[in-house]
Amino acid sequence: MRGGAGGPDSPRTLLDPDAIEDLALGATILGTGGGGDPYLGKLMALQAVAERGPVRVLRVEDLPDDGLVLPVAMMGAPTVLVEKVPSGKEIETVVRTVERRLGRPAVALMSAEAGGLNSTIPVVAAAQLSLPLLDADGMGRAFPEIPMCSMSLAGVSATPRAGADDKGNLVLLETVDNVWTERLSRTATVEMGGSSIIALYPMSAEEARHSVIPGTMSRAIEIGRALRRSRQEGRDAFSALLDVTRGRRVFQGKVIDVLRRTTGGFARGVATIDGLGGDAGSVLRVEFQNEHLVALRDGVPVATVPDLITVLDSDSCAPITTEGIRYGQRVTVVAIPCAPVWRSEAGLRVVGPRAFGYDFDYRPVEEVEADGAPHRD
Amino acid sequence: MRGGAGGPDSPRTLLDPDAIEDLALGATILGTGGGGDPYLGKLMALQAVAERGPVRVLRVEDLPDDGLVLPVAMMGAPTVLVEKVPSGKEIETVVRTVERRLGRPAVALMSAEAGGLNSTIPVVAAAQLSLPLLDADGMGRAFPEIPMCSMSLAGVSATPRAGADDKGNLVLLETVDNVWTERLSRTATVEMGGSSIIALYPMSAEEARHSVIPGTMSRAIEIGRALRRSRQEGRDAFSALLDVTRGRRVFQGKVIDVLRRTTGGFARGVATIDGLGGDAGSVLRVEFQNEHLVALRDGVPVATVPDLITVLDSDSCAPITTEGIRYGQRVTVVAIPCAPVWRSEAGLRVVGPRAFGYDFDYRPVEEVEADGAPHRD
Repeated sequence: MRGGAGGPDSPRTLLDPDAIEDLALGATILGTGGGGDPYLGKLMALQAVAERGPVRVLRVEDLPDDGLVLPVAMMGAPTVLVEKVPSGKEIETVVRTVERRLGRPAVALMSAEAGGLNSTIPVVAAAQLSLPLLDADGMGRAFPEIPMCSMSLAGVSATPRAGADDKGNLVLLETVDNVWTERLSRTATVEMGGSSIIALYPMSAEEARHSVIPGTMSRAIEIGRALRRSRQEGRDAFSALLDVTRGRRVFQGKVIDVLRRTTGGFARGVATIDGLGGDAGSVLRVEFQNEHLVALRDGVPVATVPDLITVLDSDSCAPITTEGIRYGQRVTVVAIPCAPVWRSEAGLRVVGPRAFGYDFDYRPVEEVEADGAPHRD
Repeated sequence: MRGGAGGPDSPRTLLDPDAIEDLALGATILGTGGGGDPYLGKLMALQAVAERGPVRVLRVEDLPDDGLVLPVAMMGAPTVLVEKVPSGKEIETVVRTVERRLGRPAVALMSAEAGGLNSTIPVVAAAQLSLPLLDADGMGRAFPEIPMCSMSLAGVSATPRAGADDKGNLVLLETVDNVWTERLSRTATVEMGGSSIIALYPMSAEEARHSVIPGTMSRAIEIGRALRRSRQEGRDAFSALLDVTRGRRVFQGKVIDVLRRTTGGFARGVATIDGLGGDAGSVLRVEFQNEHLVALRDGVPVATVPDLITVLDSDSCAPITTEGIRYGQRVTVVAIPCAPVWRSEAGLRVVGPRAFGYDFDYRPVEEVEADGAPHRD
């Protein structure tokens, strides 16, 4: 990412190929196992920018109050996303459909969530449609369901929401609330083959200023760059990662079991990690629904939603997504503090452990570590 | 139905309360077990006409070539339809949504299929929106799936198709073909609770002239009137029914078993009827998917789709829908020749027995009876 002149009409920053590489990697860290695989997203974004020119990244302050901001994303189980590549036409279809429904053009696109694909698909969209991209997202990470975002928390409607598949089918939804958007989007996505490209949460820049999580793209790029530079300079990538994310090392070990099923449009499962080194003798159980939800050390929660739980290859420090984790991998599990909005009572009601059916409360990852021991009730 | 002055701007006929009663009854006969229960539909149509005034019924010739014709229907398993009453707002929502998408208003509404609900819901729609109704439908009967209609056979796209539920949710579909419309409509309808109001197959009057089945409303009213008058005049209702429909009596007996499950958005099942009178010693098996599909006498097909198989109460000659059939009922099964379009090779490919997974060919019900014996391969 390269500094620009600033101001509403000039590029604040332009995404160059290095920035796209860093974005894909850093966003996969923030994706906490979900949000899609970085490889495919990176290739798509690099190609789009090579063909259509660089993408401008703006802050929400740079936009006129009534300008239409439109988040775009890929929806579906990550297990499907890695095998089912979008045709490329879906993005224009869904953006134009929402624009037509609202009778006005988008002035900027946005990432709905951070993730290897869901941070790079918006780059493809912005390049294809010659629109700027907001340096923001709706989660500061990835979450599995549509209402689990800061816009929903702030009362923004997810609809009109358009979804398209690689075959050319289009579904436009207008729902009574964002839970219904999730229900109807999920079944349509499952019927479309397990993945779709969607545009949702259309909002004015004025609404966006009060509802998005600012700076998520810059943050992802910063994380990706820190990792890339640490490798180039032969420094410890894990230290660099923990520095830049303010994260904590939760566990290291070997994956000894993975249970995974793609059901109801989600990749759900559990990875069991047998401790190595300082963690020998303990077992960490990481449960996921597209994204990692909770990490239980010998049955006790040591990191939970909404904090970010990221599983990384212990050698390369490469993030491992929930569809990529498998038996025998040597992994290090890191927990990263979530965006502050999720630590509010209202936020935890939507994305805390109980929202996912767990029978324990959220405790910030910093507190768990500060105790010097895992949290016990 | 009362004769009018004719001509494009004057009412050809107006639906009065008697005509609505007759329509609901006759259309339930044509619904072949599906298309919804007549009681609810009749009440809704009578109320709508009482509140908003009578509904004009036109022939497709009465409309300007480029006038937009829009069929409306209730979609879902009949088992759900009897318990889940539409809120009344859905009709306007779906019609206005398709109109807005196409940028022009509908000049007439239409019934997509004949049935107790699906012939009367369009009357409600026409009264609510002050639009005329075409004397036509897309099936000449009821069929369970969206592509099983004469418009689809003639190459008309089912989309843009709008669907709405009683809660206020709206789904607009634009699909690559009518099979995809069915798939995405069905899953959305299931998610909406099992039923929805839909508007689909928007077409110009010019297209309608080449693709609809004309006269289905008149036919349903004629059948209903024949039954009503035969009762009033103390004549045999079954003779009146067979006369007016050119149908054949297939079987009479007592229902000894009903297997029914609501699955994938359909009411699927089998009714087993033990013969009485001249049919004693034989068993008739009637299989259904919302509508009756095949009637097998001692294992041999004696009536199949696309011909109409209607089950009636042996005493009252009242049609029994697939959700209403139950153990102990004394019933008479009648088969009625289908609209000629379905007997073509192309028609049978869509709605013949093999289209529903059966391993035998269609044989017109007249031929089966002409043999003096059931058809055997």
